[in-house]
This record gives sequence, structure tokens and C-alpha cells, in this order.
Amino acid sequence: MSDLSQFVIPRGFRFGAVKAGLKQSGRTDFALIVADTPASAAAAFTGNRVKAAPLLIDAEHLRATGGKVRVVAINAGNANCAAGQPGIDAARATCKAAAETFACKPEEVFPSSTGVIGVPLPAEKLIAALPELAKSIGSQSDHFQQLAEAILTTDTVEKTAFARIEVSTPEIDGPGEIRQEVRIAAVCKGSGMIHPQLVPHATMLVYILTDAAIEPTVLGAYLRGAIDLSFNRISVDGDTSTNDTVLLLASGASGAAIGSGKTEFAMALAQVCTSLARQIVADGEGVSHVVELRIKGAASDADALRVAKAIAHSPLVKTAWAGCDPNWGRLMAAVGYSGALIDPEAIDISFGELPICRNGGRAAAYDENAAHAYIQQPEFSIAIHLHQGSGSCTFWTTDLTHEYIRINADYTT
Amino acid sequence: MSDLSQFVIPRGFRFGAVKAGLKQSGRTDFALIVADTPASAAAAFTGNRVKAAPLLIDAEHLRATGGKVRVVAINAGNANCAAGQPGIDAARATCKAAAETFACKPEEVFPSSTGVIGVPLPAEKLIAALPELAKSIGSQSDHFQQLAEAILTTDTVEKTAFARIEVSTPEIDGPGEIRQEVRIAAVCKGSGMIHPQLVPHATMLVYILTDAAIEPTVLGAYLRGAIDLSFNRISVDGDTSTNDTVLLLASGASGAAIGSGKTEFAMALAQVCTSLARQIVADGEGVSHVVELRIKGAASDADALRVAKAIAHSPLVKTAWAGCDPNWGRLMAAVGYSGALIDPEAIDISFGELPICRNGGRAAAYDENAAHAYIQQPEFSIAIHLHQGSGSCTFWTTDLTHEYIRINADYTT
Repeated sequence: MSDLSQFVIPRGFRFGAVKAGLKQSGRTDFALIVADTPASAAAAFTGNRVKAAPLLIDAEHLRATGGKVRVVAINAGNANCAAGQPGIDAARATCKAAAETFACKPEEVFPSSTGVIGVPLPAEKLIAALPELAKSIGSQSDHFQQLAEAILTTDTVEKTAFARIEVSTPEIDGPGEIRQEVRIAAVCKGSGMIHPQLVPHATMLVYILTDAAIEPTVLGAYLRGAIDLSFNRISVDGDTSTNDTVLLLASGASGAAIGSGKTEFAMALAQVCTSLARQIVADGEGVSHVVELRIKGAASDADALRVAKAIAHSPLVKTAWAGCDPNWGRLMAAVGYSGALIDPEAIDISFGELPICRNGGRAAAYDENAAHAYIQQPEFSIAIHLHQGSGSCTFWTTDLTHEYIRINADYTT
Repeated sequence: MSDLSQFVIPRGFRFGAVKAGLKQSGRTDFALIVADTPASAAAAFTGNRVKAAPLLIDAEHLRATGGKVRVVAINAGNANCAAGQPGIDAARATCKAAAETFACKPEEVFPSSTGVIGVPLPAEKLIAALPELAKSIGSQSDHFQQLAEAILTTDTVEKTAFARIEVSTPEIDGPGEIRQEVRIAAVCKGSGMIHPQLVPHATMLVYILTDAAIEPTVLGAYLRGAIDLSFNRISVDGDTSTNDTVLLLASGASGAAIGSGKTEFAMALAQVCTSLARQIVADGEGVSHVVELRIKGAASDADALRVAKAIAHSPLVKTAWAGCDPNWGRLMAAVGYSGALIDPEAIDISFGELPICRNGGRAAAYDENAAHAYIQQPEFSIAIHLHQGSGSCTFWTTDLTHEYIRINADYTT
């Protein structure tokens, strides 16, 4: 992260991370985001019916405070999921300790966990690390970087995105307008068990911070809009996690108040979320190809998404990509079982600009060598036109490689 | 196949296979089943909306004949799918040539294809091979074995199953009953792209033959019943093929007439189909573990199936099995996103007889070493009790291994 990033860290927040001893690797594994004053908050959680203990407590806390958060307490190395009452107790104990450290209510603490499922979280390790962590937090880019590192699990790189916009707000004591800078900074982790189905949708953990002043309900609407174009449009392995969380906090420290329907803010937020979503896919477990699916001409947007997901979840399609095999028949099969309304004889497939399939059969101009060369690229685009209507979607996914198997089949206990 | 199998080959059929030059390996790739007289027929085809040309023609032919088949013409090495009008023309030309060879109507020919999608079928190769094939057919077990070999693609073993029952039928001119032997013989292929969703559901190709005399509509009801307990309860990779076909033929050559609701026949048919379904899973591409899922206590049978399928399609669960990793948290996650009605705190998981998870958390008696040892076995059973109702299902699936990736990612053109 260059020094320039200092100018895009939203005002009103501090960050930090320490080693609490949860990661076997011995890396930092416990991080905090601390708002100077209670920040407006909007969150989205996994659609999985098995939800980790911190998500249950997060939802309860947001209801209790009407959408206000002072402290986000994030651990990696343990998902605190399927751990029964001890898991709930561990999350509550962490919130209580953090609330004492920062002189706020326990309900103003937002716990997050990622890592192995089914092993009780050792809250005592987090609590013991809190004093050191509280001393180390700060508002600089290197503090933000510490946060970005500590929340990683099988990820290989940190994932951050930034935006800065200027918004016009009415002058308080006059007829004019004043221009104010609003910053957005976002950080996330996620590499495997990636098929977020967020409700309104992520073990993807995403934290988005802004220094705009936005009411929680308005903030929620912005968040849902951005998620639908980003995190709900990616899949690495089709496994929807029990811990997926997206949290958007607005500190108000810029002094710029933003109401509903502010296009510049919505666009900047969507841009930041899409950047993170693509970074997650690019860092997917064992990924050697990132694939952009552009589905067009579907009977509805929902149908377009069905087609994209069927392709993104097909082991046969994903292994063909891993082998740079332009086997488009596997794409046709996935389109066919997607559940979307289709006419098999009205399907066109292109790899980038290369015609592959026209009217459901091999394109006259099909060039296997060119198709093979095209999908040897680390990132490529596949367009499928169904000719059924005007439904469409763009979706990002990955291949399925030997390395994915190695990462997930290695039994090391 | 031992000589004993001669006693279980249904009377009224002949079989054979030749090398038509479709398989790159140079093995036999074109097989026939020929009924001495038109056999009663019932069939089920893939639920994929992209259907191969032979399936479209099969459905048309069965309608035209009211469910009668003289010749089944099966090629491996080319799926004749997504090949447009040339694909349809190729299938029709094959039917016409077979009809001429065996002096029947083209509508009494049932074509089947399996292999690569998107490449036009070279019907001329099949037609050129017909005379030699017609000469070689016979009714012995070695002829049946030739059929079983010729239809294979990525399969590593032939898959056959046999049953023999005695049925009582009223004496025609008297008050007594006579006991008559009815034979069932079945053969199939299938290894990858296996998640049959047959409608009333399979590139699984299954041919079941009996010498009972059964009307086509009654035969259809028997077939649907057997499929729901067998082929619709397996998945290797979750990819539903464009070519899946199950065909049940009844020659009547035993002289035993079977009407609807004959339990012995239904049970024998289900037993044969379940045997084949399990053989397909055991020969799944790259499989190192076959897993039986026993879902109990679901709100409905449909919910039980949702849970089984979510688990069977989870790359994270399947890679854990490949690594003999007893990571039950991945099972919990899959149960959670299955869409089934669940209470996360009322889920019990057992590996065989070993308690793994109780009430949604790690079982008190959980023994990781024992769990690890248990799933090192090539075949094992996982039971999940949801405590929501009386819905249940048994489902067979596989792990996801390096070998699956090798088989499907190798680009050899």
C-alpha cells in the first residue's frame, strides 16, 4: 500500500491487529476496527441456515442499538460455528471484554470469526490479547494494512479497495453548496467456501468504512444495492459459508451528510465492492483461471443468474478450464440443467470475440486452436446469449485445479 | 462373467458389438440389442433441457409405436448432442439402416449415443459396420458381455446386474397356478457427468431387459418406481448429462405375463437398478471413496434429498473425504445451505456407528482418530438426523480427487 492510501482512509476509525495464538501459522489473527464515536452500521449475513455464533450476536446487537457499532472484533483461525452454547458464550465474553476496554456497551461490539468449523473458540486467548491490541491501534494506512493481513486464512494476498468522491451539500447558513470529500475504504478475506448468498447475503468477511454521515436504514439500502452487483455475483466452489458477513460502517467524520439515492456514493460503493469481489475470486483456492461470465438474452435476470451459477458450479466445466480445454459441450450441458428457460437451438457462445457455438451447434467459424489459445490466458471472458428475453448478469468464477484439491484434501491434524 | 450368467440372460434378445472407429482407443464402440419380436418398452430421459439428438428421436419413436422396440443401436465415442440438424439426420440415417438390416420399421429402432458433445456423429461409420455387427449377434452371456464393454467411455469396468424370480400365474385351462421363471438382465455405462435427473431421470446409459410379458404403460410404472430408488439417488460430480437414458424392454419370451403391482417383480427391478447405480458411483471418475448418505428426520423426503444433494455436490465436503479428513463442519455448512428446513441445534451426525455431532455441536464422545480411521475405508456411511419430521433418503456419492481433475482437465486434442 503506497503512502497515497493515507488520503483515502476514512476519518473517524482506528485499526490494529495482534497474534492471539489462534492461527497454527503463528501469524496475526485478532484485529479491531474502532470507531471514535458510534458509527452507523448496516450488515448482511450468510443465507446459510447454519450460522456461526458471532453472526447471531451481530444481528441481536444491531437490533438492540438501532444500527450503531463502536468496535468490530475479528478473529481468524476459528469460525466459532457449530460450537453450541460454548460458542455463543465465547462470543459474548469477547464483546464484554472489548466493551470494557473501549468504554462502550457490549451491544456496540460486532464480533466476526473465520476459520475451522466445529471447534469451540478460545475466547480467553482473545481477551488476553485485548490490552496490547488496544494500545497498538491507529488511523494510518499501515494500521489498516495490519487489519487486512490478520483476517486472512487460506488467502494468499490482502484484499483492499478504496474510493474517494466529492459530494455537494447545502450550505448550512446560506443559499450555496459546499463540496465535501467522502472516503470509502474496504477490506475483506475469502478464498474457499466462496459462494456468498447474502441475505439481503458471505467465509467471506468484508468491512467497508466511510466517513460520510448516513443513517443506518439508508446505509442498508446502499449496501444491498452494492452487494447484488458484487458479492452475490461470485463463486469459487459453490459452498456457501456459515460465517459470511459484510459490514458497512459510516463514521460521519467527513461532515458530509448523504441521504438516499445519491448516485455518486452508490456507484463508488459498488465499485469498491466489485473490486473486492473480483479480488476474492482471483485469490480463490488453487485458482489458475478467473472467468467472467456474461449471460445475455435470458428470460429474466434471475434466469441469467441460474445459468451463470450452473456453469460456475460445474466440476466438468471448471476442470476443462483448468486444462485450457475449449470443451464448450460441457457449457451447453450446464446451461441445459440450470433450470433457466432455454431453446437449445437458440444458444450462442463466444470466448471473448471468438464465435464458438451458434444456434446450439458448433459455429461455422469455430477455430479450436484459437479457442484453446484464448482460454490459456489467466483471465478470460465467456459470453452466452440465450435469445429468450432481456435478462442478463455478469458473474465471476474460477477453474477447479489440482491445487484446490491439495489445499482442501490435505489432512494435517 | 461366469457361465452361470447364461441362466439369467432374458430370453428373446440377442446382443453384439463391433469397432466402428468412433473411439480414439480403437475399442469396440457400436453395440446392438435386438429383440426377436417387438418388445414392450418404457424409457426415461435426462431432465437436462439440452437433449442429445438420439433422445429426441427415441421419444418420437416410442410415441409412434406405442412403446415397442425391435433394435437398440448404441454408439460410444460421440454423444451426438449440440450437433444441430446434421445430428438429427445422422441418428435418423442410423435408424433407417438398422431397420433395413433387421426388417423392421425405423420407428422400432432406439438409438443411443455417449461421448463428446458438439461434434457431428459420423453415421456413415455406424452404417458401414452394421452388416458385420448383424452377423455377430447372439443370445449368450459372452454376447451380453460384448455389449457391456462397447458402451463404456471413461468407465474402467463393465457394469451389469441380474435377477431371476419365479412368478405365479393362473393356469389357463384350470383352477391352479403355474410357476414361471422371469429373468432380468441390465447393463449400463457411466462414470463422469453423473447426476441423473431422469424425467419420470441419466451420460448414464442403462438398458434393462426382461423376458416377462408386460404392457408398455405398466412397464413405465415399474421403471419409474425403480429409478426413484436408484439412478435418481446418485451423483458423482453434480453434472446432469444431455444424454442420460434408461430403457426397459420386456420381450415376453418367458411366457409369464406380469400386470401392475407385482411386488416380486418391482423388488427385483429395484434391486437390479440399485446395483447398477452403485456400480456407477464406485466407478466414478477418479473416485477413491464411495459414500452412502443416510438422511433421516427431515421435514419431508424432498428435504432429505435436498440435504443429500447439497452434501454430494459440495467440493469442500468431497475433497475432505478424498483426504480422509473427518471435517464435519463442512457437512454442517452444506446442510445449512441445502434449502431444507433445519434447526442448527438439532442436527446429529454419525460416521457409521461413531458419534460425530450431537445437537449441532461436536459430540461429547467425538474421537477424531477413530473418525479419521473410519473414513479411510474405501466405502463408508454417513448418517445425518435432522429431527424435523419423518422424511428420509439414502443416496450414494463419491469424493473429489486429483484423479478426477486429471481425467477432466487433460486437454489432448
